[in-house]
Amino acid sequence: MTDGHRSTDLAVGIDLGGTSIKAALVSRQQGLIEQTTAQTEADKGPVHVLDTIASLVQSFTGETGDVLGVGIGSPGAINWERTTVTRPPNLPGWEVVNVGDELAKRLDAPLLTLVENDANAAGLGSAHYGAGHGFASFVMVTLGTGVGGAIIHENHIFRGSTGAAGEIGHMSIDYEGPIARSGVAGAIEAYLGQRFLSRQARYMLLNRRDSLIHQMAQPDLMGITPRMLYDAAVSGDTGAREVLDWAGHKLGCVLGSIVNLLDIRKFVVGGGLSGAGDYILDPARRSLQRAVLPALSDGLEIVQETGGNDVGMLGAAHMVFQYVDERR
Amino acid sequence: MTDGHRSTDLAVGIDLGGTSIKAALVSRQQGLIEQTTAQTEADKGPVHVLDTIASLVQSFTGETGDVLGVGIGSPGAINWERTTVTRPPNLPGWEVVNVGDELAKRLDAPLLTLVENDANAAGLGSAHYGAGHGFASFVMVTLGTGVGGAIIHENHIFRGSTGAAGEIGHMSIDYEGPIARSGVAGAIEAYLGQRFLSRQARYMLLNRRDSLIHQMAQPDLMGITPRMLYDAAVSGDTGAREVLDWAGHKLGCVLGSIVNLLDIRKFVVGGGLSGAGDYILDPARRSLQRAVLPALSDGLEIVQETGGNDVGMLGAAHMVFQYVDERR
Repeated sequence: MTDGHRSTDLAVGIDLGGTSIKAALVSRQQGLIEQTTAQTEADKGPVHVLDTIASLVQSFTGETGDVLGVGIGSPGAINWERTTVTRPPNLPGWEVVNVGDELAKRLDAPLLTLVENDANAAGLGSAHYGAGHGFASFVMVTLGTGVGGAIIHENHIFRGSTGAAGEIGHMSIDYEGPIARSGVAGAIEAYLGQRFLSRQARYMLLNRRDSLIHQMAQPDLMGITPRMLYDAAVSGDTGAREVLDWAGHKLGCVLGSIVNLLDIRKFVVGGGLSGAGDYILDPARRSLQRAVLPALSDGLEIVQETGGNDVGMLGAAHMVFQYVDERR
Repeated sequence: MTDGHRSTDLAVGIDLGGTSIKAALVSRQQGLIEQTTAQTEADKGPVHVLDTIASLVQSFTGETGDVLGVGIGSPGAINWERTTVTRPPNLPGWEVVNVGDELAKRLDAPLLTLVENDANAAGLGSAHYGAGHGFASFVMVTLGTGVGGAIIHENHIFRGSTGAAGEIGHMSIDYEGPIARSGVAGAIEAYLGQRFLSRQARYMLLNRRDSLIHQMAQPDLMGITPRMLYDAAVSGDTGAREVLDWAGHKLGCVLGSIVNLLDIRKFVVGGGLSGAGDYILDPARRSLQRAVLPALSDGLEIVQETGGNDVGMLGAAHMVFQYVDERR
């Protein structure tokens, strides 16, 4: 302990992704102290990935003496006890893995290890270190390859009955709408998921030869990215703005149902598409107002996550602080 | 105390409605001990209604010596502290009424008084004395004049940020659908609310001259009720069955979004239309399966509320038991 942190103020946060593993040493008061990243090399299987996680943890615990524990945000289903990960998409060969047991085998001393769904970890990170900081309760929506989410209620993750709450991407805005990968008709992911939005943008822009996107996405408007839409929108491209408007309108509709159900009126939007900022959030704000019961329309807010992807590992570490506090 | 109940086991539960006020003496262990009803006479204004509530309370407290308190399920917005009712629909002249203060003025001794939204009170009643009894967490849906609801999470009402959670009737299943009274497009109430369903049934049956409903709803298929649809369905009427099928399908769609968001997989359906039983619940069950993420599809259940309208006053009384327990 050379730097003035007491070990009871420190935890390791891990954000386990399909391509990279981000790890951080986190101070309860100061947030991110130090961070590092490793390639996941998911194709080498779970033993290799767990080895990598263990060595990332040790790179921090070696320096600091000890930490309160390790929090891990992971894709896949997490059990109620926050010990196991089941069949994470993009991590081939994982069935049911008890992450704490696996780390204990690899570390010199056993460490409290908690695992949580990556979207939930990001929500908790936003609540304590990100754009959600000022809200006791809010819903986080992550607009990435898919559409993920988390419900933060009174500064804690709302986990539902089995720990799987927050699958906002599969909420429907049209019971006869397009079918998402989940098989759910009109799921918001079937509008805002990366591939769906890219295709929608292509069709919306095919006959708009004046759109800058025709230069950006070649050949033939394939592979339109949120970044292209944002850049074109900033340059005044009306076609790109209309696509983001279309997307924002859909987003506002699903958020309206959430407000009506939960009486939680604050939203933090993260993920790649959130980079489009007010080009997508302003139309979402307009639709949201129309989609909520008038009695619930005071205090509605949609803000962009400012902490970027760091909120994932920060929230993972914060789980450890909350866990320890609540058992004192 | 003549009948063996300790006063700490008793509370008064009130279900304040637009036409009648139901009141009960409730035992924590035995549930309903005694009940009575008075006309609301809402047009006589809040002073009269509050007088009536006070005399109903006294009719019980006079017998039993004392009770732990009074719980009231009320229409209108309830504040976070559960003390005030704001502008309840169907109760003209009410602005913001502090029900506890008003009762204290009218009773010999002040009594702990808690007020809660009527749908939430019914949900809590179902959780402890009704069809929700076996579920730690479930969502209650009330299909009446409007569509109401409550989220019961770990045997408690989930109240959201301000106490207004559970407005399931205003969740949308189609962002471009018909507009409900709330102004929300495709709100489930715009399909299943009494007037909407009645009109839908009329249009669906106009050209089906063989339907029994033509005899029941005269003249000209006006005023079709859930009861008529149920009676005709039981008699084998395919037209009536198709209407209930249509309604159940819509219900299953909105419940699917709830499961995906909350990971709460149990539903209790009450209110007039729930009397159609499996004629509406079976199609809802089928749609629900298709509307949830496959990972969340285990253990889905939709059951009919068996406690009828009594769950409202039972839940109102139970609020008092929970409140007292949690402050011990």
